[in-house]
Amino acid sequence: MNFADRVLAAVREKKSCVVVGLDPRADSLPAEFGLASDKPLDDKRVADAIVEFNRRVIRAVAPVAAAVKPQIAFYEQFGWHGVRAYAETISLAHQAGLLVIGDVKRSDIGATAEAYAAAHLGKLDADAVTVNPYLGSDGIKPFTAFCERGKGLFVLVKTSNPSSAELQDWGEGQTLYRRVAELVETWGETYRGECGYSAVGAVVGATFPKVAAELRQAMPHTLFLLPGYGAQGADAEACRACFGQDGFGALVSSSRGVIFAHKSEPYKSRFGEAKWEAAVQAAATDMRDSLEKVRTSRLQK
Amino acid sequence: MNFADRVLAAVREKKSCVVVGLDPRADSLPAEFGLASDKPLDDKRVADAIVEFNRRVIRAVAPVAAAVKPQIAFYEQFGWHGVRAYAETISLAHQAGLLVIGDVKRSDIGATAEAYAAAHLGKLDADAVTVNPYLGSDGIKPFTAFCERGKGLFVLVKTSNPSSAELQDWGEGQTLYRRVAELVETWGETYRGECGYSAVGAVVGATFPKVAAELRQAMPHTLFLLPGYGAQGADAEACRACFGQDGFGALVSSSRGVIFAHKSEPYKSRFGEAKWEAAVQAAATDMRDSLEKVRTSRLQK
Repeated sequence: MNFADRVLAAVREKKSCVVVGLDPRADSLPAEFGLASDKPLDDKRVADAIVEFNRRVIRAVAPVAAAVKPQIAFYEQFGWHGVRAYAETISLAHQAGLLVIGDVKRSDIGATAEAYAAAHLGKLDADAVTVNPYLGSDGIKPFTAFCERGKGLFVLVKTSNPSSAELQDWGEGQTLYRRVAELVETWGETYRGECGYSAVGAVVGATFPKVAAELRQAMPHTLFLLPGYGAQGADAEACRACFGQDGFGALVSSSRGVIFAHKSEPYKSRFGEAKWEAAVQAAATDMRDSLEKVRTSRLQK
Repeated sequence: MNFADRVLAAVREKKSCVVVGLDPRADSLPAEFGLASDKPLDDKRVADAIVEFNRRVIRAVAPVAAAVKPQIAFYEQFGWHGVRAYAETISLAHQAGLLVIGDVKRSDIGATAEAYAAAHLGKLDADAVTVNPYLGSDGIKPFTAFCERGKGLFVLVKTSNPSSAELQDWGEGQTLYRRVAELVETWGETYRGECGYSAVGAVVGATFPKVAAELRQAMPHTLFLLPGYGAQGADAEACRACFGQDGFGALVSSSRGVIFAHKSEPYKSRFGEAKWEAAVQAAATDMRDSLEKVRTSRLQK
């Protein structure tokens, strides 16, 4: 089944476009995981703790999220033990019926991009990965080849960070992000599902709503993955323009705001660290509800 | 010691600007490694074979190369066992006195880029890594922070692949690669070594000699890492303009052409697979000699 169709089926089933970012920071894990010590941490111990933490986060969010998005940098920090934890996390998410977007932002030339695609969509078995477009189509094609097997990718178009403007907004007459958007829409042409969206998606920062609205027009057949919700400052309203007239077309991702919900209000007072799993579930549920209001209002228009 | 000074010391000592790309393709390893079977390969067995192959490549090239450049995609293909092999390879290269450039082309926003820098320049202990600039300075700063500790980075400016033109040559009046070059020269300002070059380097494909010459002018304080030598089509002459007036300023990388030298002429006839290590050494030595002619001719001018 086409990846875009799989995404839409998940959004319909869960009534949720929420993606939970699994970015485990060892120093933010609840105390019960035993990592909050001053001693240098042993990679294996941290990796095992991360897997257990993720297992419980996944259990908490599975009813209300469409997908999870582990950010591999937070795993690579702990060497190959960390990569083992990343692989186990993908497997746990699949067991819980969640789609997995591997946030790896890989980029390379032909044969090397093939190796990356084989690693992340093949061996590690993510349902989709994020990919950086700077090297052009040579670096994209090896990933789109996996779209034939139900996999997908999200190409960085406009990222959520403050300095994304330095290159992405650069250009005279046209911006680089618009140029990339044109390429993404073209790369995706032959991989459109029955839903009309393509398995070749785009990363568009929810932190720049005007740009996101412009990009929704420029890429009518492209699924958006919107990072920047919550801790980075974007709310549900900022995501409005990214949903299509059909109410679909966008997945919205939050990491810290969900997995470490017990550290900030209103969840800190309501749950505290002792009930951190309930805080995770409440934060994911609230995020889903806020986004569903916006998403379904698009739908009814 | 500043990374650029470390590079120049290595080039002086070895009389070589050769970087050997350690891109082990399981199906290209000599038969003695026992991987050329039709059976599905076990990750651990492949990873162990790669480490042993790299150990022997490193021994063969250590006298004539300044650095090695493992491409992590070829390791990630074999899951976490592959990443273990990558880590062991870095360690073996250091033991042999070689600099290590981790070809990881990572890119992400602030906190995530910090995690990548901690992973690749910290935990895995490469001397430098390749980094993708698409996210702007947020994605670069966490890596430059490691320049204080003698580490370096090479930012993708103009890559060696055919489709690099799609985005990198795009722009009206100015090309994107020139815009990136300006940023790289600026990012590197505070990290210049005694040699005058910065620890913030640039990846410039040797396959586009005219662009490379233009970029040498645009980035006078920037060390170049030139991929594309050998199998990708560039020769020593194509690298000429990348060396500064001082004869330094460029490292030149070849992967397949060296590590699988026994598979193509003239090394195939001279050595064959039985003497593959001698073929590796001969190819690296020939590459060094060809480049030294060009490099020292720049020097004498």
